[in-house]
Amino acid sequence: MRAATIHGLKDIRFADVPDPVIERPTDAIVKVTASCICGSDLWSYRGENGPINRPRTIGHECLGIVSEVGAEVAEFRPGDYVIVPFDHCDNTCPACRAGYQSACVNRGVTTSGQGEYARVNFADGSLVKLDQTPDDDLLPDLLALTDVMATGWHAATMSGVGASGKGGTAVVVGDGAVGLCGVLAASTLGADRVIAMSRHADRQQLAVRFGATDIVAERGVDGEAAIAELTDGVGADFVLECVGTDQAMRTAITVARAGATVGFVGVPHGVDLPIRALFDTNVGLKGGMAPVRGYLPELLRLVLDGTINPGLVFDATLPVEQVADGYRAMDERTAIKVRLTY
Amino acid sequence: MRAATIHGLKDIRFADVPDPVIERPTDAIVKVTASCICGSDLWSYRGENGPINRPRTIGHECLGIVSEVGAEVAEFRPGDYVIVPFDHCDNTCPACRAGYQSACVNRGVTTSGQGEYARVNFADGSLVKLDQTPDDDLLPDLLALTDVMATGWHAATMSGVGASGKGGTAVVVGDGAVGLCGVLAASTLGADRVIAMSRHADRQQLAVRFGATDIVAERGVDGEAAIAELTDGVGADFVLECVGTDQAMRTAITVARAGATVGFVGVPHGVDLPIRALFDTNVGLKGGMAPVRGYLPELLRLVLDGTINPGLVFDATLPVEQVADGYRAMDERTAIKVRLTY
Repeated sequence: MRAATIHGLKDIRFADVPDPVIERPTDAIVKVTASCICGSDLWSYRGENGPINRPRTIGHECLGIVSEVGAEVAEFRPGDYVIVPFDHCDNTCPACRAGYQSACVNRGVTTSGQGEYARVNFADGSLVKLDQTPDDDLLPDLLALTDVMATGWHAATMSGVGASGKGGTAVVVGDGAVGLCGVLAASTLGADRVIAMSRHADRQQLAVRFGATDIVAERGVDGEAAIAELTDGVGADFVLECVGTDQAMRTAITVARAGATVGFVGVPHGVDLPIRALFDTNVGLKGGMAPVRGYLPELLRLVLDGTINPGLVFDATLPVEQVADGYRAMDERTAIKVRLTY
Repeated sequence: MRAATIHGLKDIRFADVPDPVIERPTDAIVKVTASCICGSDLWSYRGENGPINRPRTIGHECLGIVSEVGAEVAEFRPGDYVIVPFDHCDNTCPACRAGYQSACVNRGVTTSGQGEYARVNFADGSLVKLDQTPDDDLLPDLLALTDVMATGWHAATMSGVGASGKGGTAVVVGDGAVGLCGVLAASTLGADRVIAMSRHADRQQLAVRFGATDIVAERGVDGEAAIAELTDGVGADFVLECVGTDQAMRTAITVARAGATVGFVGVPHGVDLPIRALFDTNVGLKGGMAPVRGYLPELLRLVLDGTINPGLVFDATLPVEQVADGYRAMDERTAIKVRLTY
């Protein structure tokens, strides 16, 4: 098949690679019909996950049609239209049953999502079937559910938005697709004030459309001061950390009120947690890889009934063959998130 | 007055010092009638909080009788018998109202609790009055409420014990007075299995009396393996970290099941948080200084109705003049916790 592959620093090629095959009887192969590029793909693209020693496929967000199933796959068969959570799970182990499918003992991830075919581990546990082939205009929303919307939802959920039923103020650190989905999640889950930290006009606009009530354009100490002022010096009841850098984490902890929880979903890169500050303020920290499969039924319902439109995070569309241009656009921030067509 | 003072490494003296005075109109002075030594006092005693550049009073756990109040103190007057939370608060600021009195904007702490008198900041917010002078046999339980029992309760509460109403397994890391109170808290709050990590026979016995269902004597990797076995490889639903060292925190995070929360109350000393492990497992972290004042009404009720007997953590009693011997006993672990009589 052909698939997006990474060969080195900022070197993405749409190239011939071996077809993925059934390796275990619980696997399925999906013929990809729509995919996209994730902000977290940029860590590899920019060399921040270490050197690429040999070319490999890249991409973990896709939808498609089941083309082949292993002998033990009972719930799916070729022809089923499915949403593929980026993180795969058996959905039966204790971690899954506790709602943390992202820590499944049989966790897998999609590794050729920007290709023509992708293997899904534990297909019965991982995949979610659609009743029918979706209309094209629904594809962006569905694609967003494979990772970024579920991840923003996880940040909001981990921070406690909606748990008390009391509203409250949420701050979202990060205005990438996940941060913007975090704004949508915080708003949908019941925060009555959502402060988005964003310095890009297009992202600010989308944040407002997603429910942001306030925008803070400053970063670092200035941004923290702006939020202190907006919250009368108290800080936010909920904080969503959607970047993964040390600065973002420090800002997230700083703007939280005493006893609030930072829901963090940015993949940590160089984060040095200030344990003493956490101790002194009782600010909690909870998050990690999102249990996409766990959230999918609810999120799919919200998409299908029109409550949320997370697909608005896509502001560029390219044929999958031009995937390298998509990476470039996201790296240079000329696009928030790029959708790939087949 | 005379008070316990620290002069340097392992150098405690019961010495003459100036009487504490009303400094702000919201202060009160309490004539101490009972006090004790805290495990956290040992950090200073052992030089782990840095050098002692000049002698100062030490001690933050005491009960007593109000002897003087500032002009703005409305709720207390001389003669009132009071419990003094080690951390003082106005109990009205947003942090206090959110239940985090330990992050009060007017936070103070008791600084001469092992002396004859102690100053209390924001007396109206901080103190809790008893209806009558308590019987001597109640003093240990009441003393425990000024810090260690409230701190163990905080660890259990932050870890989520009791929040779901579903029981579950708690692990308590640390068998000092706080850890033992954590066992009592986890058990009282509804964990149906409480695993105490302790390698001292006397502490193991007390842990069992406080509700521990299992004891793990091993530490570090061996202790983690023992808990993995006890929990069928899943890990604990709730973890209470009651030490403050890096090893204790790593064990706490390791033994938590995916998505569990570590309630931490050990004052962090050299803790380097493994952010990536937290991300990969979705194990949360929440804790810090306990909002003693917030928990006191409930804990006092539980003591007075006989539900809990946290005073059992005291296994030695000395006249306050011999406070230095008490430090030595706790430092050498020949006593769990020393009560001082007046």
